[in-house]
Parts: sequence; C-alpha cells; structure tokens
Amino acid sequence: MGGMTRRHVVIGTGAIGGYYGARLAAAGASVTFLGRSDVPVLRRDGLVVESPRGAVHLDEVAAETDPHAIGPVDVVFITIKTTGQDALADLLPPLVGPHTVVVSMQNGFDLEPGIARIVPGAAAVLGAMCFICATRRGPGQVEHLDYGGVTLAEHTADGRPAGRTPAVRAVADDLTAAGVEVGVRDDLLAARWQKLVWNMPFNGLSVVLDVGTDEMVGDPHLRDLVLGVMGEVAAVSVAHGHPVGEGFVDQMIANTEAMRPYAPSMKLDFAAGRPLELAAIYDAPLRAAAALGVAMPRAAALAAQLHFLDARNRR
Amino acid sequence: MGGMTRRHVVIGTGAIGGYYGARLAAAGASVTFLGRSDVPVLRRDGLVVESPRGAVHLDEVAAETDPHAIGPVDVVFITIKTTGQDALADLLPPLVGPHTVVVSMQNGFDLEPGIARIVPGAAAVLGAMCFICATRRGPGQVEHLDYGGVTLAEHTADGRPAGRTPAVRAVADDLTAAGVEVGVRDDLLAARWQKLVWNMPFNGLSVVLDVGTDEMVGDPHLRDLVLGVMGEVAAVSVAHGHPVGEGFVDQMIANTEAMRPYAPSMKLDFAAGRPLELAAIYDAPLRAAAALGVAMPRAAALAAQLHFLDARNRR
Repeated sequence: MGGMTRRHVVIGTGAIGGYYGARLAAAGASVTFLGRSDVPVLRRDGLVVESPRGAVHLDEVAAETDPHAIGPVDVVFITIKTTGQDALADLLPPLVGPHTVVVSMQNGFDLEPGIARIVPGAAAVLGAMCFICATRRGPGQVEHLDYGGVTLAEHTADGRPAGRTPAVRAVADDLTAAGVEVGVRDDLLAARWQKLVWNMPFNGLSVVLDVGTDEMVGDPHLRDLVLGVMGEVAAVSVAHGHPVGEGFVDQMIANTEAMRPYAPSMKLDFAAGRPLELAAIYDAPLRAAAALGVAMPRAAALAAQLHFLDARNRR
Repeated sequence: MGGMTRRHVVIGTGAIGGYYGARLAAAGASVTFLGRSDVPVLRRDGLVVESPRGAVHLDEVAAETDPHAIGPVDVVFITIKTTGQDALADLLPPLVGPHTVVVSMQNGFDLEPGIARIVPGAAAVLGAMCFICATRRGPGQVEHLDYGGVTLAEHTADGRPAGRTPAVRAVADDLTAAGVEVGVRDDLLAARWQKLVWNMPFNGLSVVLDVGTDEMVGDPHLRDLVLGVMGEVAAVSVAHGHPVGEGFVDQMIANTEAMRPYAPSMKLDFAAGRPLELAAIYDAPLRAAAALGVAMPRAAALAAQLHFLDARNRR
C-alpha cells in the first residue's frame, strides 16, 4: 500500500468503537464508523471522547449504516457486543478484500474462528483484548475513565500461535501511531483467558449484587469470591495449555484496586434492559472447561444466576 | 409427673413458635409463650393460625416477657432465630430444672452443645428440624402454608446418637397429641444436614436473586445451581459420617416442586432489614466442611454474596 493512506472501519459506535476510532481519527488515520441509530448523530454532531489522557473532539466523522457504501478497507475493527454477533454475516463481507485484516476487539472466548468462517478471504483475523474503562454516555459521546491498552494476537487456522505476523505488526503500528499502548502476544487464547480472569468475576457480580469494582475488591467476602473465580479461570487456562501466567490474578486485583470505581459494561447493559454477553463471557469458557474436565463451580454458579436475571430482566 | 399436666414454654412468637405453640395449646396442653414486643398483643388479642390443616383461634394466651415469671417447666421449645442466640443465656436458666427437656427448633448446625452449656442441669437438649412453610403476618398472626412435620433427635454429650430416649419419646408424644407429624431420628447431625440440603440453596438464592421457591425449581439454570449446592451438602454429610441418605436431594427437589410458591424466612428477614441467619445456615456448616477438607464452592460463593448483602442491607 506504500504511501497511500490506510483505510479503517470501526463496526460499532459504543465505548470501545468510539474510543479507539476517535484516537485513530485524531492521529490522522482514515476512519469510517459503521453503526445503526447513532450514525445520523455522528454525521451531524461529530464524536467527543472525554479522557484523562486528553480529550478528542471530532467535528467531522465519516459514518455509514450500509457496509456496501464503504467497500473493502485495510482494517476492520469489530467492537459490537457479542450479543449482536449474528449481524456480522451481513456487515463484514462487503468490507473485506484479500488484503483486509479483521480485528475482534470484543469480549469473549475463541470468537475468531467464527469470524473467519464469515470472511474466509480476509488476510487475517486477529484477536484484540482491550483493557479499558470507558462508557458510552450517549450517541457520539464516550467517557474514558482509565487504562486503554490493547493486546493483539493471531492464531493460525489450526489454532496455533502465529506470532508477530505482518498483519499483527500493521495493526499494532496503526494503534501505536494513535497513541494507544499495544502489546503483542503470541498466544491469543492465553490473552483471552487473561481477559476472562477479570471479566468473569467482576462483570457477573456487578449485576447480581448491584456493586461497583471498588466494593468488590474492598469487601472481604466479595474479594475472596472474586479471587476464587479468578483462580478457577487461571486453573482452566493452565489445563487448556494457554496459561495466564504466574501472578496474573494478583496483578488483576491490584489493577482493580488502583482504578477508579467502575461499573462494568454488563452492569450498564443490565440497567438498560439490554441482553447480557453471557454466551461470550460465561458459556463459552465454561464449555471449554467442561471439555477439559476442569470444574469452575463458582463461575458456573454466577453464570446460572446471570442467566436467570437476564431472562427476567428482559421479560 | 404422672397425671399432672405437662407445662410447655415456647420461646419466640414468630411463625415456628406461633404454629407449634398454637397446635399444642389447641390440643389442651399448657403452653406459655416467652416473647418481647408481641407479648401485649398476644395477651390482649390471642393467637390466630390460618392453616390448610385447620385454623387455630386462641382467645386466651399465656405470654410473658420475663422467664422468672414462669419458672421451671417440663419442655422448652426454642424457636427464636439464631441471630438472637445470645439472649438464651438470660432466657433459659429460669425455665430449666432437672426434669426439663429443652428442644431447639432452630435452623442451624450443631446448636445443641452451645445450649447445653447454658443449662448444664437440663434433663436433655434435643434437636428438632421443622419442615414447614409458615409465615408470621403480624403479632399473634401466623399463616401456615404447607407441611409441618418435625424430626426429633438427641445426641449424647460426646456427640454420639442417643437413640429413642425417654426425653425424645415424651416430646414426640406431646407433639403427636397436638396433631403434628413427628419423626424420630437416631442421628441428629444427619437430620441437621438434611435440613441444610434445603436451607442452603433456597434461603440464600431467594435473597440474592429475589425469587421464590417456584422459580428456583422451575428455571433450568437455577434448578441446576440448587442441585449443585444440595449435592455439596450431601457430599459433606457423607464425609462427616452423618449421611443425608441416598435419594434425599431428589426428594427435596420433588417436595419443593409440590409445595405452594414460598418465600423462605431469609427472604422475609432481608426484606424487613433484619439480620440474616448466616452464622447458623452457612458459616457453621462451611466450617465443618473445611475441617473435613471437603470443598463447598457453590455454597461458599452464595455465603459470600449473602454476607455482603446482609451488611449493606443493615447499613
């Protein structure tokens, strides 16, 4: 592509899509948002990200509702919730050519094979774990609270670590140029398990008990329970051959203690009556654990409570 | 005691005390209630038990707030919640002579040794498990919904089953004469574990998720979780040498399915801002399990959630 401007599409206009899309656009990259109801607001009012690391105000934003109006691009960042994963069958193919790299920035476990089946002709499907506290305050309005780093990784079609491929390097360069801290991991599944170490206890308990992260690490009983769930995830990651690493659980607790009180996205979804990301954050890893014969009783108990609450919440 | 009328005291004027006290009094037994704020209402208005097995209306009720006004009796039924167990140090001694049998009708685990230490001169301290759905609607007003059987058992001072002792037979005869279905068990601890098979899942989940028994056995995810907790209790009872018995878990599920939708007492306590019986229903059995090296991760997770909610509820 030489000196030509690389073109990026961000699918989704929530906290994740808004934050990273705005950082890329503010750094001069070509960014088009693909969304639904927020698109007219983005076109009219632009996009605002409030952030302790420097606010971004974009007066002009390219935004579309139809992927055919965009066509194939260099990078597609998928930032929609996994509860809307079915929509990708329509959204992705028009955006993807033989040189296109697709990046799932979503919560979940082993999402990339499903995405690759939708766009088998893509150059690569990467996984990205976003360690960020950010909230969508309204259409085109994102509040960034803390963190913001992204971990990237690619697997081969048969599930082995692909290493620091050209696709990984290109996306890492794009994000780094936009001021985003990027880590590259050989092992995507280990990185996914790492994300789950945080997501499985904090997302679920925030819904079941209506608490923020500060209370969960501050209350002695809940802290023990959080550690118990985290330990289950870490144990499964070892059994799975993709260990999160020594000391990772302690590091996640320390990070959470250091961060501002935060309502995980699942808590906001629940409060708004939206479906919860249970398939991606609970069901898929629990299935993986069961297939390995490893018990996750605390995580499974939480998942059962969440399935009940989610169904009742949407009745 | 020959032909003399046996005297009974019921400590507590809630659902359990009101129900069994009323049944005994209606059958002609001498019954005095020992209570606090309900006592003036009981004296003025009597006691009403609405029940599908026949209502009881007692216009005249003997009720006291001071145990010294009663003196030693034949049988003392303790029906207060274990969150008020400290009060027994003052309430029990005046009621107990060398012929007095004390019966704990409370939820919990291994409560009898603590009671025996308060009244070492009692003839016996029995444990009773009440399998009943009943609710206190107000002072002197009890609504009985379903069941009502009582299981009695006595242990020797060193913890071995004492069998069908004269004390057990006498209390069983009293209750049977009052129309209460009585079972006698050799093994009090096995009976306590049986009660916990029901109490640990249903009491806790009813508070955490704000659900009744019907939804807990009807929702597939919650039913799995209930079965998981029940299985943990059954496993610990085996390790403890006091097994609940083959098929008991299935029987409890079937009983719960057959009964009318019911809000367990812990749910009512929580709604009223009262302290929850966590020490008796969760902490003591979890300690017993830990001492045996048996894991109860689902029950422990529930207990952690409940401790947090209980503390927040009373702040």
